[in-house]
Amino acid sequence: MKAITLEQIAEILREHDNYLILMHKSPDGDAVGSAYALCMALRKMGKRADTLCGDEIPPMYGYFTELAPNEGVEPEFIISVDLATTSLLSGRTADYSDRVDLCIDHHGSNTGYAAVGYVDGKVSSCAEIIKYLFDVMKTDIDKAIADAIFTGICTDTGCFKYSSVSPATHRVAAQLMELGADSAYICHLMFDSKSRGKILLEKMVLDTLEFYCGGALAVVCVTLDMMKSSGAKDCDIDGIASIPRQIEGVKLGVTMREKPGGEYRFSVRSCDEIDASSICKSFGGGGHRAAAGCSINKDKETAKAEMLDVCIRAVEGAV
Amino acid sequence: MKAITLEQIAEILREHDNYLILMHKSPDGDAVGSAYALCMALRKMGKRADTLCGDEIPPMYGYFTELAPNEGVEPEFIISVDLATTSLLSGRTADYSDRVDLCIDHHGSNTGYAAVGYVDGKVSSCAEIIKYLFDVMKTDIDKAIADAIFTGICTDTGCFKYSSVSPATHRVAAQLMELGADSAYICHLMFDSKSRGKILLEKMVLDTLEFYCGGALAVVCVTLDMMKSSGAKDCDIDGIASIPRQIEGVKLGVTMREKPGGEYRFSVRSCDEIDASSICKSFGGGGHRAAAGCSINKDKETAKAEMLDVCIRAVEGAV
Repeated sequence: MKAITLEQIAEILREHDNYLILMHKSPDGDAVGSAYALCMALRKMGKRADTLCGDEIPPMYGYFTELAPNEGVEPEFIISVDLATTSLLSGRTADYSDRVDLCIDHHGSNTGYAAVGYVDGKVSSCAEIIKYLFDVMKTDIDKAIADAIFTGICTDTGCFKYSSVSPATHRVAAQLMELGADSAYICHLMFDSKSRGKILLEKMVLDTLEFYCGGALAVVCVTLDMMKSSGAKDCDIDGIASIPRQIEGVKLGVTMREKPGGEYRFSVRSCDEIDASSICKSFGGGGHRAAAGCSINKDKETAKAEMLDVCIRAVEGAV
Repeated sequence: MKAITLEQIAEILREHDNYLILMHKSPDGDAVGSAYALCMALRKMGKRADTLCGDEIPPMYGYFTELAPNEGVEPEFIISVDLATTSLLSGRTADYSDRVDLCIDHHGSNTGYAAVGYVDGKVSSCAEIIKYLFDVMKTDIDKAIADAIFTGICTDTGCFKYSSVSPATHRVAAQLMELGADSAYICHLMFDSKSRGKILLEKMVLDTLEFYCGGALAVVCVTLDMMKSSGAKDCDIDGIASIPRQIEGVKLGVTMREKPGGEYRFSVRSCDEIDASSICKSFGGGGHRAAAGCSINKDKETAKAEMLDVCIRAVEGAV
């Protein structure tokens, strides 16, 4: 993949027409916010542009995702946003795996699958990069675009909490608010609003909390039964994975989740001294240093024991 | 109380020596951050300055509150920060109730108890006002001062979530990071770190969750027994009060808490349409429109029934 500048991207986006913007599966606020912001900006330039995701866009993003699709036109130029690897494409987006023209991303681990790309692993979110691109393009950012970018930034930073937040991130947030982004509404919706199902699920999950390594390792479990009896939806699981690591003294937090078919999905969250992605790599997964994931296709006790074994060694090695 | 400008405050602070800065009881991040930031800035000017609080400063703020006290000097000039009313002074701070020389606050409901004061109810936090004061004073903001101000701003805004956050708030956050504020560390400590006691308490509190008004009113209860058996501390209660209001569909969230002596303390959190402070005023309490509190000195069932009665009418009136 040839690395290009934001100025070169702006040039490319002027040249073509009929863009398709791809999102990864299980799209989060950064994927959705980046894709829709870019799509709206391209349409403002008089271009044809659409977004595509293998999964349904969660309805909570409805305040900026209600765009009429362009029907029946074969896309000419394929763009991916917030997509580290094409293995995260699913459904109809997977058809474009081998023909992504331009990639805009903030994952240092980006596999370089596109013809050209702009990847900056130091920026908080893909949406923050999109904002810098719009500065170069002199895009007229309206309220909907500002809401979309703000959503991407705040969701990918845990509402400005993570170490990926820079002074520039806060300045972009200030500008977006001045351009109409409804910061309080968005933050409430993304962070202070829980379904009754999620509240119930959290309570059930806390009942499974176990500590190891003198309290430095915490493990919780989400079963299919819990999902069913709580009435929680898949998108309600997002915050659950951060619960064990939030507990005082915990250096490594593990959430194991039963998937239909018997597989167990692990979300691993770590503190500075421990590399969650290397733990998950040993089971064929990956991610960031502080947050990673993997799957183990064995029965519950075996899967848990194998994960615990690697985690306990990681915690003991870090002390 | 005579309203004065930040420039006039800067002038006053140059004139005097030997300041005492008062904090309200049960001090939060904004009270502690504002008081210590101001104290450190005054000391940098060569002044004698101390902070005083009727309650212990929670140890979680230890990264900026380790200041050697000035012993045995009677304070000459008394300043209050983040203090809406002198009824929130307790212990040794209450001795100064009638002689506060200068008040710096962001509560629109400030009762005007001081000789002179600067109150701006539109600013996110008292700490944000302190930052603007330091701009006027040309204070050399070092890392500890930046950490203290950042702590005040982020704790009083739920980490930049509330509607009190303005574009200026984000710009101040950016500047503070550049001056050394450890944003990620502070945010993790304030928002992503829970004691085991708090986790246990949350679980117990969720067991008491009740809905009224078709789900628009949610009530939880914290008893002395729960506090004891969970091992949670007083400062662990902070986040509990926001739980009921966070549930989807809830317009009014009430947390009732048993206090030693049999009194019940109510924390009321509301959405835009409902004024929490007017609900609490009818029981002799007060606060902001979205977050207020009061006490009822009756047995549990009576106290709850009286509060529910007022809340149900408020919810039904808002529909």
